[in-house]
Amino acid sequence: MKEHPADSLPFFRSRWVPAPPHVRELGLQAGLPQGFRAAGVAAGIKPSGNPDVGLLVCDADDPVSAARFTSSGTLAAPVLVTRERCRLQSLRVVLANSGCANAATGGRGLDDAAKTQGAAAMATAVDPAEVALASTGAISHLLPVELVLKGLLEARTQLSREGDSAFQQAIQTTDAFEKRANLEVTLPSGVVRLSAQCKGAGMISPRFATLLCFVETDAVLTPETAELLLGVCVKRSFDRASVDGQLSTNDTAILMCSGASGVVVESESEDELRLGEALDALLRALAIMMVADGEGARRIARVLVRGGHADGVEAVARAVANSPLVKAALHGGDPNWGRIVQAVGAAMPGTAPLAVDISIEGVQVCSGGAAIPHDEEALAQAVQRDEVEYEIVLPGEGAETEVFFSDLSHEYVTINADYTT
Amino acid sequence: MKEHPADSLPFFRSRWVPAPPHVRELGLQAGLPQGFRAAGVAAGIKPSGNPDVGLLVCDADDPVSAARFTSSGTLAAPVLVTRERCRLQSLRVVLANSGCANAATGGRGLDDAAKTQGAAAMATAVDPAEVALASTGAISHLLPVELVLKGLLEARTQLSREGDSAFQQAIQTTDAFEKRANLEVTLPSGVVRLSAQCKGAGMISPRFATLLCFVETDAVLTPETAELLLGVCVKRSFDRASVDGQLSTNDTAILMCSGASGVVVESESEDELRLGEALDALLRALAIMMVADGEGARRIARVLVRGGHADGVEAVARAVANSPLVKAALHGGDPNWGRIVQAVGAAMPGTAPLAVDISIEGVQVCSGGAAIPHDEEALAQAVQRDEVEYEIVLPGEGAETEVFFSDLSHEYVTINADYTT
Repeated sequence: MKEHPADSLPFFRSRWVPAPPHVRELGLQAGLPQGFRAAGVAAGIKPSGNPDVGLLVCDADDPVSAARFTSSGTLAAPVLVTRERCRLQSLRVVLANSGCANAATGGRGLDDAAKTQGAAAMATAVDPAEVALASTGAISHLLPVELVLKGLLEARTQLSREGDSAFQQAIQTTDAFEKRANLEVTLPSGVVRLSAQCKGAGMISPRFATLLCFVETDAVLTPETAELLLGVCVKRSFDRASVDGQLSTNDTAILMCSGASGVVVESESEDELRLGEALDALLRALAIMMVADGEGARRIARVLVRGGHADGVEAVARAVANSPLVKAALHGGDPNWGRIVQAVGAAMPGTAPLAVDISIEGVQVCSGGAAIPHDEEALAQAVQRDEVEYEIVLPGEGAETEVFFSDLSHEYVTINADYTT
Repeated sequence: MKEHPADSLPFFRSRWVPAPPHVRELGLQAGLPQGFRAAGVAAGIKPSGNPDVGLLVCDADDPVSAARFTSSGTLAAPVLVTRERCRLQSLRVVLANSGCANAATGGRGLDDAAKTQGAAAMATAVDPAEVALASTGAISHLLPVELVLKGLLEARTQLSREGDSAFQQAIQTTDAFEKRANLEVTLPSGVVRLSAQCKGAGMISPRFATLLCFVETDAVLTPETAELLLGVCVKRSFDRASVDGQLSTNDTAILMCSGASGVVVESESEDELRLGEALDALLRALAIMMVADGEGARRIARVLVRGGHADGVEAVARAVANSPLVKAALHGGDPNWGRIVQAVGAAMPGTAPLAVDISIEGVQVCSGGAAIPHDEEALAQAVQRDEVEYEIVLPGEGAETEVFFSDLSHEYVTINADYTT
């Protein structure tokens, strides 16, 4: 993959997610936490010849893990196999590929996935139920099993703690830059490591994951704590990001814990709180990076919605984030906030007249449903920024949510009008 | 407005809506049914100098009408005023403008709308409650009342049965071609006329109207019949069309009946059935024309969904029609039906594995959720057509729906990234 300007930026670069004080960035060369090895190779699945098979292994005696998957009704075979046949609390291996989603492939797809799961188990000397599968790429194509197996055998010989970069490259599709981090987290009981490799640039949306994300830590966690932390942090990160409102068939997020640091994170302890904060910042920063790398994206935005009830703020935030009119205006750096009014109204049918307040980058433009005088110069400049914030206040109090989203660009159309051809 | 190639095509030009045998196209010069006059003038609301104020008058002693409005929670002032203050079953006058939606304008917007309603009532010597208002254009701008009144006074002097063309032009915004028809309908009890003027090219979507549409007939209808026919036909036409999934603040559809033909359409009669068929074909053809004139549209599609329950087929049809991935593939003439799988899965969370069948232009590509061999050459040619049909079959039987939609193009982005600036 070509060097991208974003690759030289700090990981915590969005104003929306500052680094917690007890979290230190170690840089992209720092390698995986102790107890993990990874590799990525080019097996020929992608016509481009780019890396397309990744292998991630946890060498701990008693690994602990947790996983989350897309809620799609048309789940890809690797998701079905992993969700139904794996011991999700004690995964040891991830076999991932790009270039083929193995989705809409029926019984044959399940068989193909099972074959690669068995082969990975054999190659790494673990039980098949300890091998998670993850695929991404075009839907409806059969998995080229021979190529995956070839890649698996080659990757096995290249496993190393520094393999996270190659692994990351092997799971990428239309991503323009790396979504990867190596962090050091200082807990009251000691110092632990946290790493993540993540892909996602389109078909990114509502209702959870919508991406592949693998997180490794050398902290000692119980399965219950791993489950809790991943669940909460996914809800606050990937679940709040949308590039195009499209839910993928393959979304998978896995947290693996080697325990190699010996630092024990007890349930409901200060350690758990601090590790949770670090994981939260990690996944939120990754979610924002995905949005910033949304197919064709030039600007990203956060819509914050406050108001009377949870369903209302959720519907409004989604409607704004997924409105092609709002997204095109964001792309154009256009202060046309009438599209926000439209999206709010569409999300709250039958409530007119609705006393909605709207501010953009702190400039209030709408009060009680009506336009108010504002500094148009300041607004015009604000919407030209790389990160634009919309704040919407509905009647009532108590509920609040946010969604991060990208703009709608010519490049999005180009990328998606010509993807298979 | 410039001549557009579409203006010389027959009105019933989509294979999806053939002309009923008892309906004859009279051409765009045929004028309005007896009992109606219209006009459109350029009052200076639009910076372009194009027509922007339209007036439509029914001269009958006892006019009958029916109306439908957007369900948006941020209704524009003209919609609120018309819905709350008019006698919707006996409207005599429509005052319409383009260039300003009078939406998100609060109490001032309501006052402004009321002023123009009062002026139109005065100018046409009717009761204010008999004057419907309709506005379209940018949201959040105050209505330039003086310009509307100036246009109203000028339009009043130009009212004629041939004024439907000028009226249509006055309600257009980004429309590229005329959406207008003059039809002759042969009923068992006699011959009646049916005319319509319609605008809409963006912010067109789910849940009803999403446009301005005015329909005139010289048939004699009771208010109950007018209400029934408009309600049913809107549900089967504008409610099934989506350009961009965006619900407008201003959508309005009004049917007005002068009764001037003397042909009485009794409730539950063969006349009612035949007139209903004609109105249905008229509104469906207009809905498809709107989609074909969707901002930047190059191709249009119909997604037909059949299966077990009404909520499911509706959710799937909307998800496909509003998916930017499906729409971009449609634009590119790309047979990438994996995006359809994705949209179906997103609309049916938690149902995996879902046994869905998918056909494109009669070429079946997916059976029971899995890709099947198909004639790829035939498929590649089929998706290059101007009208592309997707058929999706979900498990179970009994429910069925359809949505017409347009592609997502570079022009859509261009139009909507630079609309106000």
